[in-house]
Amino acid sequence: MQKQLKLPIHKSSIEEAHALIKPFIEQTPVLKSTSINALAGCEIYFKCENFQKIGAFKMRGATYALLQIKANGKGKKVVTHSSGNHAQAVAKAARALDMEAFIVMPRTAPKIKVEGVKALGGKITFCEPNLKAREENMQQIKAREGAIFVPPYDDLDVITGQASAAKELIKEVPNLNTILTPVGGGGLLAGSALAAYYYANNCKVFGAEPEGADDAYRSFKAGELIPQNNPNTIADGLLTSLGDNNFKLILQLVEAILLTSDQEIVKAMRLIWERLKIIVEPSCAVPLAAVLKNKPLFKDQKIGIILSGGNVDLDHYFEKMRPLS
Amino acid sequence: MQKQLKLPIHKSSIEEAHALIKPFIEQTPVLKSTSINALAGCEIYFKCENFQKIGAFKMRGATYALLQIKANGKGKKVVTHSSGNHAQAVAKAARALDMEAFIVMPRTAPKIKVEGVKALGGKITFCEPNLKAREENMQQIKAREGAIFVPPYDDLDVITGQASAAKELIKEVPNLNTILTPVGGGGLLAGSALAAYYYANNCKVFGAEPEGADDAYRSFKAGELIPQNNPNTIADGLLTSLGDNNFKLILQLVEAILLTSDQEIVKAMRLIWERLKIIVEPSCAVPLAAVLKNKPLFKDQKIGIILSGGNVDLDHYFEKMRPLS
Repeated sequence: MQKQLKLPIHKSSIEEAHALIKPFIEQTPVLKSTSINALAGCEIYFKCENFQKIGAFKMRGATYALLQIKANGKGKKVVTHSSGNHAQAVAKAARALDMEAFIVMPRTAPKIKVEGVKALGGKITFCEPNLKAREENMQQIKAREGAIFVPPYDDLDVITGQASAAKELIKEVPNLNTILTPVGGGGLLAGSALAAYYYANNCKVFGAEPEGADDAYRSFKAGELIPQNNPNTIADGLLTSLGDNNFKLILQLVEAILLTSDQEIVKAMRLIWERLKIIVEPSCAVPLAAVLKNKPLFKDQKIGIILSGGNVDLDHYFEKMRPLS
Repeated sequence: MQKQLKLPIHKSSIEEAHALIKPFIEQTPVLKSTSINALAGCEIYFKCENFQKIGAFKMRGATYALLQIKANGKGKKVVTHSSGNHAQAVAKAARALDMEAFIVMPRTAPKIKVEGVKALGGKITFCEPNLKAREENMQQIKAREGAIFVPPYDDLDVITGQASAAKELIKEVPNLNTILTPVGGGGLLAGSALAAYYYANNCKVFGAEPEGADDAYRSFKAGELIPQNNPNTIADGLLTSLGDNNFKLILQLVEAILLTSDQEIVKAMRLIWERLKIIVEPSCAVPLAAVLKNKPLFKDQKIGIILSGGNVDLDHYFEKMRPLS
């Protein structure tokens, strides 16, 4: 018996979102590596959202959310809080759509992401690195400017936009057995699960999460939302707690959440850098780490992994090249 | 009046080589970056040979050379000397064609390249890091094993194979005004110049070379081959002297050799890593450095750059992540 699903996002909305955002996003390539496949014992297709505009999938959801705000006559000012990629995405989409973006960022956000937001014309307010400070600052700007809040993940329009990445992957690589994405707030995971449900054939979807920020794992197991306190992981894009809308979709559509250690994440990240010759963030490497940790689960399967972003601070590398760099 | 050219490689040979090597190589993607274009004042199309098998264009020439040796009944043993990418290419092609590869490598070759050759079944002999030692060791193996020497660049078959990269680029991006490649031994530059001559329409070809290994620049200017002594540059793939066959083609077909400093190379390499989100070797970044150094020369042009390889030692980066890495 098929279970009765309650899905607040219809296939037609994903179709519409994808068509509307297409002029503003890249259709990113799919890469694979013979040597990674040999190591993993399965066939992995990497959807390279690190090549997306602003270097992350966040461009998809933010663009759709802003298009909806504009279409609904809600004005031209938007505000958000984000440690990085969502911030750049909102700034970039606002510029493309002739809107104004106010961005609240934790003062600990990676330099490359702060500079990215600045270069895109986003108006930055720095705050303490916790959710409370971020939300308070955002509310102040909202009140002062009359700006509309664009949530980083807990929003149906944002989730609908994120679904387009897995939709493209499924179209390019037919008959995937499994899709894995990292899970932080859950926008990419919920969107990918929706895309798999609507567009693929019996394709299971897994979330991959760092042990040091395992709220999705614990929430999924408990069947109720458990917020993340004091996250501690190298995967700096996955520190936030799962969103409410995201969790409801994930509970219905996702097979399981797989945990990985930071050491496993760094190892997987290095594999991606060395074998695929591409730059990805630590957060990106969590799904590959999960596959390598659970080889029997994925043996001989056709696997899709969404590489979420590539905005990593390269100072570490290039300071070694001083005085040249 | 058109000058009378003496080209020892015909269009039909490039056609044949490309058709024969296709099953053994990748048709690599072409990437571009809005922000790099804005910075450079022109439109740059990067042909990503860092995504080529073994991570470098060298796979093309080595595969064609080995196919020819096999087709001509010269046996199944080959030998070469190389600081890295050519070595991996010969090892990989030998394995694919059921041949045996002996590789002489300088003991200073980057670890990642040595490991690559080993993993591909190449039989390594280490030697002192100079051309004399490399050639002596190679000759010994040639005599002992009856192996055929596959030169890294100074060879018409190798040059013919390398031409296929620019051929693909020209087909994918019509109406290029200029193509730039790095120049070490000159295989990629000579091959690309041939491809531009046969397949493009008025497309100029430039070589880009580090100041610390500027033999191509000096040779081109003098009109005679001047060998490179004591090269000193971060671009470790470009240390060798220009080959004789290569030089003859370059003199006839190439517009100019442009020099860049190591600092400019590292800056360009960082741009490629950060903006294109891909891993390239320092040698790869020399053409972009040359474009950025000579902006008026390329203003508003449509430029093709061949990114030659991505086999860079990542220990520098990941040792910063200890104890995780």
